[in-house]
Amino acid sequence: MARFDGRAFNALRPIKFERQINRYAEGSCRVTWGNTIVLCTASVEEKVPPFLRGAGTGWVTAEYSMLPRATKTRTVREITKGKPNSRSSEISRLIGRSLRAATDLTNLGERTITIDCDVLQADGGTRTASISAGFVALFDAFRFLTKEKYLTKIPLVNQVAAVSVGKVKSEIILDLCYEEDSTAEADANFVMTGKGEFVEFQGTGEGGTINYTDMASMIELAQVGTAEILKMQRECLCLTENEAKLFV
Amino acid sequence: MARFDGRAFNALRPIKFERQINRYAEGSCRVTWGNTIVLCTASVEEKVPPFLRGAGTGWVTAEYSMLPRATKTRTVREITKGKPNSRSSEISRLIGRSLRAATDLTNLGERTITIDCDVLQADGGTRTASISAGFVALFDAFRFLTKEKYLTKIPLVNQVAAVSVGKVKSEIILDLCYEEDSTAEADANFVMTGKGEFVEFQGTGEGGTINYTDMASMIELAQVGTAEILKMQRECLCLTENEAKLFV
Amino acid sequence: MARFDGRAFNALRPIKFERQINRYAEGSCRVTWGNTIVLCTASVEEKVPPFLRGAGTGWVTAEYSMLPRATKTRTVREITKGKPNSRSSEISRLIGRSLRAATDLTNLGERTITIDCDVLQADGGTRTASISAGFVALFDAFRFLTKEKYLTKIPLVNQVAAVSVGKVKSEIILDLCYEEDSTAEADANFVMTGKGEFVEFQGTGEGGTINYTDMASMIELAQVGTAEILKMQRECLCLTENEAKLFV
Amino acid sequence: MARFDGRAFNALRPIKFERQINRYAEGSCRVTWGNTIVLCTASVEEKVPPFLRGAGTGWVTAEYSMLPRATKTRTVREITKGKPNSRSSEISRLIGRSLRAATDLTNLGERTITIDCDVLQADGGTRTASISAGFVALFDAFRFLTKEKYLTKIPLVNQVAAVSVGKVKSEIILDLCYEEDSTAEADANFVMTGKGEFVEFQGTGEGGTINYTDMASMIELAQVGTAEILKMQRECLCLTENEAKLFV
Amino acid sequence: MARFDGRAFNALRPIKFERQINRYAEGSCRVTWGNTIVLCTASVEEKVPPFLRGAGTGWVTAEYSMLPRATKTRTVREITKGKPNSRSSEISRLIGRSLRAATDLTNLGERTITIDCDVLQADGGTRTASISAGFVALFDAFRFLTKEKYLTKIPLVNQVAAVSVGKVKSEIILDLCYEEDSTAEADANFVMTGKGEFVEFQGTGEGGTINYTDMASMIELAQVGTAEILKMQRECLCLTENEAKLFV
Amino acid sequence: MARFDGRAFNALRPIKFERQINRYAEGSCRVTWGNTIVLCTASVEEKVPPFLRGAGTGWVTAEYSMLPRATKTRTVREITKGKPNSRSSEISRLIGRSLRAATDLTNLGERTITIDCDVLQADGGTRTASISAGFVALFDAFRFLTKEKYLTKIPLVNQVAAVSVGKVKSEIILDLCYEEDSTAEADANFVMTGKGEFVEFQGTGEGGTINYTDMASMIELAQVGTAEILKMQRECLCLTENEAKLFV
Repeated sequence: MARFDGRAFNALRPIKFERQINRYAEGSCRVTWGNTIVLCTASVEEKVPPFLRGAGTGWVTAEYSMLPRATKTRTVREITKGKPNSRSSEISRLIGRSLRAATDLTNLGERTITIDCDVLQADGGTRTASISAGFVALFDAFRFLTKEKYLTKIPLVNQVAAVSVGKVKSEIILDLCYEEDSTAEADANFVMTGKGEFVEFQGTGEGGTINYTDMASMIELAQVGTAEILKMQRECLCLTENEAKLFV
Repeated sequence: MARFDGRAFNALRPIKFERQINRYAEGSCRVTWGNTIVLCTASVEEKVPPFLRGAGTGWVTAEYSMLPRATKTRTVREITKGKPNSRSSEISRLIGRSLRAATDLTNLGERTITIDCDVLQADGGTRTASISAGFVALFDAFRFLTKEKYLTKIPLVNQVAAVSVGKVKSEIILDLCYEEDSTAEADANFVMTGKGEFVEFQGTGEGGTINYTDMASMIELAQVGTAEILKMQRECLCLTENEAKLFV
Repeated sequence: MARFDGRAFNALRPIKFERQINRYAEGSCRVTWGNTIVLCTASVEEKVPPFLRGAGTGWVTAEYSMLPRATKTRTVREITKGKPNSRSSEISRLIGRSLRAATDLTNLGERTITIDCDVLQADGGTRTASISAGFVALFDAFRFLTKEKYLTKIPLVNQVAAVSVGKVKSEIILDLCYEEDSTAEADANFVMTGKGEFVEFQGTGEGGTINYTDMASMIELAQVGTAEILKMQRECLCLTENEAKLFV
Repeated sequence: MARFDGRAFNALRPIKFERQINRYAEGSCRVTWGNTIVLCTASVEEKVPPFLRGAGTGWVTAEYSMLPRATKTRTVREITKGKPNSRSSEISRLIGRSLRAATDLTNLGERTITIDCDVLQADGGTRTASISAGFVALFDAFRFLTKEKYLTKIPLVNQVAAVSVGKVKSEIILDLCYEEDSTAEADANFVMTGKGEFVEFQGTGEGGTINYTDMASMIELAQVGTAEILKMQRECLCLTENEAKLFV
Repeated sequence: MARFDGRAFNALRPIKFERQINRYAEGSCRVTWGNTIVLCTASVEEKVPPFLRGAGTGWVTAEYSMLPRATKTRTVREITKGKPNSRSSEISRLIGRSLRAATDLTNLGERTITIDCDVLQADGGTRTASISAGFVALFDAFRFLTKEKYLTKIPLVNQVAAVSVGKVKSEIILDLCYEEDSTAEADANFVMTGKGEFVEFQGTGEGGTINYTDMASMIELAQVGTAEILKMQRECLCLTENEAKLFV
Repeated sequence: MARFDGRAFNALRPIKFERQINRYAEGSCRVTWGNTIVLCTASVEEKVPPFLRGAGTGWVTAEYSMLPRATKTRTVREITKGKPNSRSSEISRLIGRSLRAATDLTNLGERTITIDCDVLQADGGTRTASISAGFVALFDAFRFLTKEKYLTKIPLVNQVAAVSVGKVKSEIILDLCYEEDSTAEADANFVMTGKGEFVEFQGTGEGGTINYTDMASMIELAQVGTAEILKMQRECLCLTENEAKLFV
């Protein structure tokens, strides 16, 4: 089966991570993932949410949002509608959990790192792009905290990246673009660590259901895809020898 | 390992579905699932959301909410906070997708069935209880529509039930209660059909990650659990011979 | 005149109070009042509203809400509309004032008891059912506070119950069901104490006005009705001899 | 007992109704009632709420609000708080019901009259002042509709006025000012017609309860008070001979 | 060219400032400016916004709002719409900046003066009327603070007044009424000090643009207009000899 | 006086306009203006606001917003605060009016062009950057409408650009960066046409007032600055000969 953009079933779209694209944020990364573009910033604030006050531990959270014309037709802003978009809230929560899994919260100190993921252009896979680029921004914020002596060592516990897989015209494929996503019989997102373990997985049968064989193929493809993305993250981060050890 | 309430690793809590517990709703089911109690009503309305107007197809949606004292300590109402609870919105979306997978929307006609899932008491597993009881309420609404001649046949495509699985103290167990859930290293929810296929799956490593072996065990337990729940649904529904054929 | 459901003009509908129906709340009561069903929980919290901080006195407040399918046709949730329902707010305020009249706030300590009244099914008289069952839940919360040694004695000043009266087809009747309420020329709610005094009264001429004779009949019927309900509350509460003295 | 401002127990404060104080509204009245000042406008709009569309009948509604510095200390605006004030909503509903009782909605045509009651200065009795002045504004809107040939006759069914009564230091008194109201053991508002019948009544025991004797005294005083106010309304309206017949 | 109401191009409408029209506010002024009527109150509160806490300096802020029937047709209240009116917010900010320019914030102490400007009737020029009358209310609040010994001297740095100018049918005119404003090719508002300097200026070409000559004429007329208003403010304030020195 | 970044008093920061940076929008422009970066998209929709329905004329509107980390410290999103930021609303209105002045609304047809201006990084002058880049995006949307035959000719009436001027340390300077802006005694924004006329002007004395000489210098500098920006806009747009005639 030929894919919409001619890729092999197990091929990612062209992905480019660019760091330090915001002069104020403690970490930042813009990712261009096919036609999807997401701008991630990591902001360090010396405060924690009420439920953590006095606990001596830190927090990582995320906010995902789309610019009005990230989409084919203009989307009304959340503030104009007067209520949060529930899809965006759900994705924000997913990104937050995924990046907390990357972080040694206990050794972060009583501070919060907020990862803002603003989608400038959407063409499928915005949540996996946000997680993958969010990790890069987060790591630069870790570097800021150690360089500025807030922390003595980088509070990393897992390298984290994400990818989508789906079933389109009965075939299991990697990294769906919008046209594929909108006609998929099923699709799933996998967030995986550098060690090949699962952090988050979410799948849905849309106009179809998923059997065991499909599930196995999805898991396999997800591993293939995240392995490539994890490598790109490491390259883009220009790891020092010491840092590299944290990624093993 | 002894479980919190003494169950075997693969045992469900005691579950009771009660139908027709609301005199106005076209379908209704109260489920008592251990100490979790959820009241589900299915409301038929002769209208569809804007994006479906004129499409000749129907819609199934869900709204999940907790009473303030469903929880150990009182939770402030959403309307008092002035904004929707994002966890509730996310669960509402999950229930909606799951029950749409049960429904032949094309043959539902231009109408909407709303499944309201109000948690009277929460002790873990409220979303899987909502989906499983929501299915029962939905089926009674289908019966209403055929009995009242709105439809000529029951628009069922899949029987649907859900269960949680998790990893607690390194062991994979079925159907977590609150105490297990709050200390789990990982937990996941699986929505499955009568044919043993997946409709939705969502898993998260909380303070841990999930490896392949865990994943395989989780999937296996989910199948065991949903098979039992699917059976209970059928019994509670007192299927006629004709209806029973739809469930094969 | 025959009433909609065959009752005598001065007869209440069948009423059943059930206590301890929520495992977390300090007090709870589900009332089935004809076809009206309300679930009341009393939650104790060790805090008071800003205007009472440091005053050494306590507070009792109430929140009234209806489940979406408590009504013949589905009602949109407040949070979906984005603003509080003003009828619900008004009833919440009425319940709160009524139950504060039952309570010795000065001897409650700096804590708040919140009575949540969630209507599972509505068939007229939901506010009087909420006040009457709310009193039962409140009393059990008083017992909790004394049993757990937060208080040395039960801070009760008045037993409180409520009932509706109305004018339907020119006749004054007790305890209107929905069909009677929706065609009433006038209706009123009376909240009364165990001593037969008024705590709150609210009456409205709807499509009619109320003359002196009607007013006198209404007051008389309200006394008859509340006397019965007060008795049911006492029975359901299984008062000890010492407690019973507080109700005289 | 001497009252706060030296009045007799059955004396109203000085009351002045001024009509036509807004150049745009179809009817308007500013009332100065002791130190309470309320500005009422009646706005005619050629539309009805959704539930009345096509019913051929009209609607009267009211909105009550306080300017921030109507009170001794500045009150934050509702829009700044982001949610409606529930006391204001409740009073709005009371005013609306009271003035609908004055109106022949069936003969009003498919239009809405909105009575806006904005409190410029509050010193007790703002809701009774709003109802009493709102009636005057409403009647001028009726005149506008007949003068401009929208209606052939004035759709009046009842003259309506309101007054407060209360129990202060064990004495039943008429028309409480703020100092009396804030120390009252009980207080009540009565809305009455020109024929001496009740349209609305609402009473509350605050820090006290109300017995039968109190209730009887309250009702008696309310009649005395409203009779005077009804007379002032008629004088201020400069009724023609034909109009005067509608008030009998 | 004859103006809508017969005025000369450089003539103001009749303006009347009335002080002390609210018994609670520390300063108050109702201005009748042609058919525009605005009620301004100045409220002193012993607190400052978060960004000034501990800074030892004070704050002046303003809130502008229109009553629903201040306009030819009824305007829906902000709270009913559920969101602030952006025109009102913008005008509130303008009034606040203008009156802060009148105030020695450093010597005001850690307190806030809020100027509420509620438009009772609108016929053009409501923002300039609000600023001009707001100044009068503010000055009386200054007097209150010194009389009550909160301050040792009046914290005035500039007398401030405002006026509108516009281009109507190609002619530059002063102080536009509604009919002129709604057909203007351009209009501008100037806030000026007693020394003839600019505090704020805002102009807009509506259906036209503004050239240099127009700009020069506008500035000239604004000075003529504000000079007259500044004089009226001083007269209305009945300045003592000492106070008068502050205005030089 | 040396400026913060070494510029001459009448020098703009380096400005770069980039077109067609969004694959979905009918027009788009990202401007890099010193360290300020704004992304503008122009979206064409075949509908008009209610007040224009049936009028046969079109509409141009704008929405201005800042990403959370466009600023030195992270700013909470509007939707999280639950209410629109009044500064953003005010700027949105300014941009909208400015770009409507560029447009022949009568010949735009019954459609709306929305200019979204999202600030990716803020370093002063975001509103003038938004107007100037918004014009470029708008013009490309005009081109789209003519190329796609929705319109027969480009509905341009004025080329429009904007710049800020201010008074810093007593000197009048052009195009303030953040450090200059935050210490300015006065600042103003001028929106001007290709013909050198004013569309909008807004100035404010902040901690100072503006005299006539200052005003004259500001106007002069604004003309110098906008002339340069207008030239850059034309270059970036690569005007055809026919289009160029519209700009004369």
